[in-house]
Amino acid sequence: MKNFIGIDLGGTAIKGGVFTREGERLCSMEIPTNVERGFEPIAQDIGQMIFQMAESVATGVVNEHITALSDVKMDKLDKNWLTDIASVGIGMPGITTGNTGFVLFCTNLGWTDVPLGERLREYTGLPIYVDNDATVAGFAESVFGITKGAKNSVFMTLGTGIGGGIIVDNHIYSGSHGAGSEIGHMIIGDNFYNCTCGRNGCFETFASATALVKYAEHRLENLQVGENSTLCEHYSKNNLTAKTIFDEAKAEDQLANEIVDRYTTYLAKGILNIYDILDPDIIALGGGLSKAGDFLLNKVREKVSKNVLVKSLKYGDIVIAKLGNDAGILGAAMLGLNYI
Amino acid sequence: MKNFIGIDLGGTAIKGGVFTREGERLCSMEIPTNVERGFEPIAQDIGQMIFQMAESVATGVVNEHITALSDVKMDKLDKNWLTDIASVGIGMPGITTGNTGFVLFCTNLGWTDVPLGERLREYTGLPIYVDNDATVAGFAESVFGITKGAKNSVFMTLGTGIGGGIIVDNHIYSGSHGAGSEIGHMIIGDNFYNCTCGRNGCFETFASATALVKYAEHRLENLQVGENSTLCEHYSKNNLTAKTIFDEAKAEDQLANEIVDRYTTYLAKGILNIYDILDPDIIALGGGLSKAGDFLLNKVREKVSKNVLVKSLKYGDIVIAKLGNDAGILGAAMLGLNYI
Repeated sequence: MKNFIGIDLGGTAIKGGVFTREGERLCSMEIPTNVERGFEPIAQDIGQMIFQMAESVATGVVNEHITALSDVKMDKLDKNWLTDIASVGIGMPGITTGNTGFVLFCTNLGWTDVPLGERLREYTGLPIYVDNDATVAGFAESVFGITKGAKNSVFMTLGTGIGGGIIVDNHIYSGSHGAGSEIGHMIIGDNFYNCTCGRNGCFETFASATALVKYAEHRLENLQVGENSTLCEHYSKNNLTAKTIFDEAKAEDQLANEIVDRYTTYLAKGILNIYDILDPDIIALGGGLSKAGDFLLNKVREKVSKNVLVKSLKYGDIVIAKLGNDAGILGAAMLGLNYI
Repeated sequence: MKNFIGIDLGGTAIKGGVFTREGERLCSMEIPTNVERGFEPIAQDIGQMIFQMAESVATGVVNEHITALSDVKMDKLDKNWLTDIASVGIGMPGITTGNTGFVLFCTNLGWTDVPLGERLREYTGLPIYVDNDATVAGFAESVFGITKGAKNSVFMTLGTGIGGGIIVDNHIYSGSHGAGSEIGHMIIGDNFYNCTCGRNGCFETFASATALVKYAEHRLENLQVGENSTLCEHYSKNNLTAKTIFDEAKAEDQLANEIVDRYTTYLAKGILNIYDILDPDIIALGGGLSKAGDFLLNKVREKVSKNVLVKSLKYGDIVIAKLGNDAGILGAAMLGLNYI
């Protein structure tokens, strides 16, 4: 059985790994992205990463972690190293056409309409697939993680923004132009500040980690006479984070609880929208905020179950994702399975 | 080639038709629902409708429109009449499991967890499918209408409420429990009145025909000093309808235009949410309000295109549905094709 290469292409680093079909990692690699170089040099580096990782596995090195590109020129790389690679998948924070690997749009990298898949096919001759980073993480969960076995599932990352991964009939669903599953941008209310996309009311302006902190700042900057909170100290020390807010809520600080209450109310609204549109078997929450675990889950489940459209129906369960940060590279690697 | 029977089961009437694979109607029938009788008598009437319509076609009657049940007892009906019927599909305003025909929930009929499919299979021995009425209308549009040829499409009815029909990969998508595609209940903002479902902010409380009239009433009941409108007269004559509001907006009444402007703003938000989650090839608008045609379409398209997430992307077109009221029975009839 051939192996699979996965790449997590981010604004800071490019991470890669070679995996068996069973998800065992045989080699890993990480280099800086250096976004300012633009598309072609970055594509070339990814091409070289593919060769170096494949070489490591082909030559029998065990579990190597490579941290730099070699000096070997692209045209001297040995395609025989690639013989045992089934395909290469790339996850990135953007809008792509999965099976062609065309990147329509990526804010973090400043890319619009670049032929990433085409270029890497030229370099390697391998099948190349490119999908959104939240989508590939959701796919990893559906192949190896918490949503395994579910025909239809939705994965959402609660981090800087909110990313989404939709699985329909055991396959990735990204819509007709690769612009679907952007659930962080569904409009769910009226908010006191605008989204980075320019619109008002996007789900991620209520229910991302950034949104949680922004609302806490907003409340702290508008404290009423007589109101006090342990959050004031975190705020004055520039230490107001999603974690400190959740910790103080657990410690029963009243303001922190009000802030978390608003947060979970809107997270529940977003989940209810997913129920009413997609009605999946299961919804998995990932990203930094999902580390709040049961404290978060219990509040959200309660608010969701009180407000479902059909009270007599048992909707899909809401759970915490399982694979953590590894989901990105692993899910990218497994893209080959999606497009078979 | 066998024929297909479609049934439109509503709170007032049960309508049916026999159709060829090409969508030609061979016979039609309509009887009152008499909701208060409850499930079993209604299921039995539908069973008898199936026999009567099939008999009409089997015995060579051309284009009969049947308006009453015959006196023949159920156990005397001739199953040979059904030989040329491929399957029966039923559309109804509720949550169902399409291929089993189990009805989980239907407000208008007051049904929860009834085995409609099972009962009709007992009566007829035919394959029976039951789906949401907006879903089957959307399916009809995708087989014969405006979304024909589109792999992924979304149909929305702008009527008393907002119904949704989602087509993914040329097949109906209703989610894992049949509760998906309820796009009228996605929460998109904060509204001045609650939805019939008990929640606040559902799409249909902003963008259904009912919502348009309710907001107009709200504005007229809270007119500011100096404000006037041609709508006042319609209001005082109990003639404030979606049509009169749109007509007065076309006639450049200022308040009517403000009301239509709010309406199209929220309709655009709902469509943008569909873009960001499902990114279909095309979105078709049906239902009474879609009769406003280009006047509505131009305003909505403009608001949508100004606010899309990826400016460089050509998202799916927004169009007016083609099949009108017939879409319900026709789409129900074609359900057999969906589940092959």
